[in-house]
Amino acid sequence: MFVNKRTIRIEWGDCDPAGIVFFPRYFAYFDACTMSLFEAAGLKKQDLFAHYDFGGFPMVDVQAKFYIPSRFGDDVVFESAVTRGGKSSFDVHHKVHRPEGLALEGFEKRVWTGKGLKSTPTPEDIVSRFLTPEERAA
Amino acid sequence: MFVNKRTIRIEWGDCDPAGIVFFPRYFAYFDACTMSLFEAAGLKKQDLFAHYDFGGFPMVDVQAKFYIPSRFGDDVVFESAVTRGGKSSFDVHHKVHRPEGLALEGFEKRVWTGKGLKSTPTPEDIVSRFLTPEERAA
Amino acid sequence: MFVNKRTIRIEWGDCDPAGIVFFPRYFAYFDACTMSLFEAAGLKKQDLFAHYDFGGFPMVDVQAKFYIPSRFGDDVVFESAVTRGGKSSFDVHHKVHRPEGLALEGFEKRVWTGKGLKSTPTPEDIVSRFLTPEERAA
Amino acid sequence: MFVNKRTIRIEWGDCDPAGIVFFPRYFAYFDACTMSLFEAAGLKKQDLFAHYDFGGFPMVDVQAKFYIPSRFGDDVVFESAVTRGGKSSFDVHHKVHRPEGLALEGFEKRVWTGKGLKSTPTPEDIVSRFLTPEERAA
Repeated sequence: MFVNKRTIRIEWGDCDPAGIVFFPRYFAYFDACTMSLFEAAGLKKQDLFAHYDFGGFPMVDVQAKFYIPSRFGDDVVFESAVTRGGKSSFDVHHKVHRPEGLALEGFEKRVWTGKGLKSTPTPEDIVSRFLTPEERAA
Repeated sequence: MFVNKRTIRIEWGDCDPAGIVFFPRYFAYFDACTMSLFEAAGLKKQDLFAHYDFGGFPMVDVQAKFYIPSRFGDDVVFESAVTRGGKSSFDVHHKVHRPEGLALEGFEKRVWTGKGLKSTPTPEDIVSRFLTPEERAA
Repeated sequence: MFVNKRTIRIEWGDCDPAGIVFFPRYFAYFDACTMSLFEAAGLKKQDLFAHYDFGGFPMVDVQAKFYIPSRFGDDVVFESAVTRGGKSSFDVHHKVHRPEGLALEGFEKRVWTGKGLKSTPTPEDIVSRFLTPEERAA
Repeated sequence: MFVNKRTIRIEWGDCDPAGIVFFPRYFAYFDACTMSLFEAAGLKKQDLFAHYDFGGFPMVDVQAKFYIPSRFGDDVVFESAVTRGGKSSFDVHHKVHRPEGLALEGFEKRVWTGKGLKSTPTPEDIVSRFLTPEERAA
């Protein structure tokens, strides 16, 4: 499994009057980290638009579980991986680490789409960058 | 069950280069609609801070399922309700309606906290504004 | 001068750890209120894309002056008007009112663009919806 | 003059349906870069709260001028400096660079506040970290 890590600084503007991250901000970071994961695998989003029948990979289902809050000035590590690659959808799992432990997790289910945002099978050579044949069969 | 509806205009700045709502924005709207739900039940968030041992109701688990995308200029209707009230946590369900059908759903699990963001039982008189005794036992 | 007013509820997620609006949020509201101003004048943004050589009206210069802070749960009134319509750019002025007085002001200078975001003269019939010939000459 | 540089990746979610950065996002980045500037000078915002009579440095006036648009996947460099330190307010100037030139500029005027967001003189030892006596007199 191909794993990418990205450290993110929690900013003042990410936090709410309780002083902790306003939770929707984590989803923007999940999205950014999914892009980073693809880029680390050699698939920058601009290149996907340029070289594939690609309209984006919109979310169909997303979940987050929160364990430890974070505050502005904290640096947290997003660890991201494609954990399942199906015919028309794939899953991304984000684990967000703090020094004292797992802070939150994110679970994304996205569909690959072609031009015009029409669902289309995820190209084989893309899924194979993230999962081995054994992992895909699991 | 106490249900609140709020119409929200999708703004240009809510949408991404694919022309559809950038999904983290929906979570900000969920949060705003949970506030509106409480306010419609006579519990404005400022009043909670003023009259209760209240530090906020941080999210512990949140999920969204997306069925139909929305674009800038669209008006969508958020229909929100507390669907479960436990000893220390409660659930909020958001259904987002478009003219052609259900666009997405959100599922929030929040904990009630006192000053200092310490988990504390949700006050009885608050849960009873949203659910009947029968609904709570269900 | 054509003036549009829109009441906006300050949300929890608009505010920072100091408990006041995180100032970049005001610019998102300015943008939304410029859209509302155009829509009130019969020019919904989708219609601009459909009926004109229109690629958007990107900002070239924007300023805000802050007088009174706002907090979550506050309702503030955005009063917006096109105050100048030049050959290739136009100005929008936003005044944000609180019960106790003027809370902040925003000053936008935008350029009209055609498809491909190329600067092009603002169509005459658009400027004339906001300013009289006398106001334009002033 | 003490200058800090920070490279920022433009994310998909920072961009609007025209494919370019939704301009309010730049102000969030300005705010983050002002924090980075202070931190580079040894003044992390948490430390300000811990060691000074500090309630934040709210914006009183902010302006941005836009020259070249940016798109998702672009890396831009924010170059930030305190350019004036008065008795009760100070100015921060941000220049945002792209490979082909200056993309935009931001001009912030902020006031130093003590606990409770009351305006109070900026501590001498703070201003002196950013500007020499000659620069302050200029």
